[in-house]
Amino acid sequence: VIQPARVTARACALIGVDWGTTSARAYRIDAEGAVIEMRAAPLGIQQVRGDFAGALATLLGNWRQESVPRLACGMIGSRQGWIEAPYVECPAAAASLARGIVETPDRALTIVPGLVDRDDEGVPDVMRGEETQIVGAVAGDASPALAVLPGTHSKWAIVRDGAIASFATYMTGEVYAVLREHSILGRMAEMNSQALDPQPSAGAAFARGVRAALADGGAADSLLHRLFGARTLALRADLAPEDTSDYLSGLLIGSEVAAGRGWARRRGLEASSALLVGSPALCIRYAAALHEGGMAAERGPDDAAARGLWRIASTAGLVG
Amino acid sequence: VIQPARVTARACALIGVDWGTTSARAYRIDAEGAVIEMRAAPLGIQQVRGDFAGALATLLGNWRQESVPRLACGMIGSRQGWIEAPYVECPAAAASLARGIVETPDRALTIVPGLVDRDDEGVPDVMRGEETQIVGAVAGDASPALAVLPGTHSKWAIVRDGAIASFATYMTGEVYAVLREHSILGRMAEMNSQALDPQPSAGAAFARGVRAALADGGAADSLLHRLFGARTLALRADLAPEDTSDYLSGLLIGSEVAAGRGWARRRGLEASSALLVGSPALCIRYAAALHEGGMAAERGPDDAAARGLWRIASTAGLVG
Repeated sequence: VIQPARVTARACALIGVDWGTTSARAYRIDAEGAVIEMRAAPLGIQQVRGDFAGALATLLGNWRQESVPRLACGMIGSRQGWIEAPYVECPAAAASLARGIVETPDRALTIVPGLVDRDDEGVPDVMRGEETQIVGAVAGDASPALAVLPGTHSKWAIVRDGAIASFATYMTGEVYAVLREHSILGRMAEMNSQALDPQPSAGAAFARGVRAALADGGAADSLLHRLFGARTLALRADLAPEDTSDYLSGLLIGSEVAAGRGWARRRGLEASSALLVGSPALCIRYAAALHEGGMAAERGPDDAAARGLWRIASTAGLVG
Repeated sequence: VIQPARVTARACALIGVDWGTTSARAYRIDAEGAVIEMRAAPLGIQQVRGDFAGALATLLGNWRQESVPRLACGMIGSRQGWIEAPYVECPAAAASLARGIVETPDRALTIVPGLVDRDDEGVPDVMRGEETQIVGAVAGDASPALAVLPGTHSKWAIVRDGAIASFATYMTGEVYAVLREHSILGRMAEMNSQALDPQPSAGAAFARGVRAALADGGAADSLLHRLFGARTLALRADLAPEDTSDYLSGLLIGSEVAAGRGWARRRGLEASSALLVGSPALCIRYAAALHEGGMAAERGPDDAAARGLWRIASTAGLVG
């Protein structure tokens, strides 16, 4: 029997919390910035009805006895969270984030601010939580890098000179979910659940959707047309109805890759590869889509948020 | 008192039916192709549970006694309808549609076929019902024209040499509806119903969305990014939350206009104006969006389907 004694005996130097809309994760982090232990709970800011102190106590449990700093990132610092940590403007290095930290009135928790940037037309874009993951995933002194964080609201960020230079959000995950659940495309895909051999060619249908989306990346926006193609392909027996969801997923992620690549280029970064930070299942899809678009993909660390919290805590002088 | 006697006394030469997924409309048409009377009922093919003969009897009522031909268009000719009228390939003139008509087994109704076309990547596109509206709205011998039929699945069609040369579908209306009802953008707009002065600047927010969508029509597809902008603009107090829906509507219709214009151009039509066929409320929005994109808009006839049915019936030798 291998005893985990040595691992659990390491002293905790920081408690990090990644506190989002629907869930919260807490990390015990040692004096070298390594994660000792992790806990997750469905205690997102939407779930806890304003009782943030109670939710934190539930999440931490016996970790509350640790007399170490506690640093959180994510929606907990939004206007709907515990206390607002106002958005910091891009470009933003770990030092800018460290300067923007805000403490709750009861001093139970310190919170990392989110970031704001503006796109080519001056429309604002925001992130909360992802800035910390990016700081944790990208080495500070590396050459310019492109980080991609797939999800409900995917983020593409350029890291340059140790700072998050600029970023852009794509509503890919949410658009997929609402079309899958509420549109005619979802009703076609419903046959899936009745199929004997579900998703027999998921990978192929996904790649086909990606290629369709990338086909005329230089032409005017045509996503609204391509979406209808998912229906007609199935209608005309060119696509198995049960593959509609994967084709739709490919269309949307492909559209994001085409747009994100162009966005990075307009900001002076001709990226040949992207660093993916997110769930393994999504990262696999994004890696395939990036590959179709001629880009390589690298997987970021799983505990990017914990690493980022450690780095910001160090920069802020909370630890070390 | 003006007696409508002269109008109702005109003899009926054709009964036309525009029979879609959610509703059905019937027209009594005189020997000159003019509509004498119209009836509408929520007897779409999704509502009538396969009893098409019963639904037709209900829709026509005492018109059943007219011993004149009956010609229908729309989803009634789909695989889910009364009898399938197989899709006709583009380019298709009224004569091609007339050659493709199919009669129900009980000879109660003759049905116009739908059209199929393929886009640049070979993905099929289909229409059922709109082909008849286009035939009714566009004069056969005019110079090349661009017809735009806004709706759940908007259609853009090029009419050239008296035939529908090509068309493209955009899922604009359906994407708007699902995002409005089921996404975070809808939840922001919900404040609308609580506002004292609902939609105070609807026109301005709509136009702003259109301009954002048209801003880089030449760059890669960026709709997924712009959609998130509707949220951040409201979050950052640059847009009243109750205007989110109009901004979203502008983004989507603007995106359709940018894509449709590029599509027509790739098919050799540099259109300076479009003929709009659809509901007055939608046509007003599309005219505004076309105007922002530097195009003029003309409103097609309200009874385009009836006119088209008459023209196809004449070409098929059913009347006249």
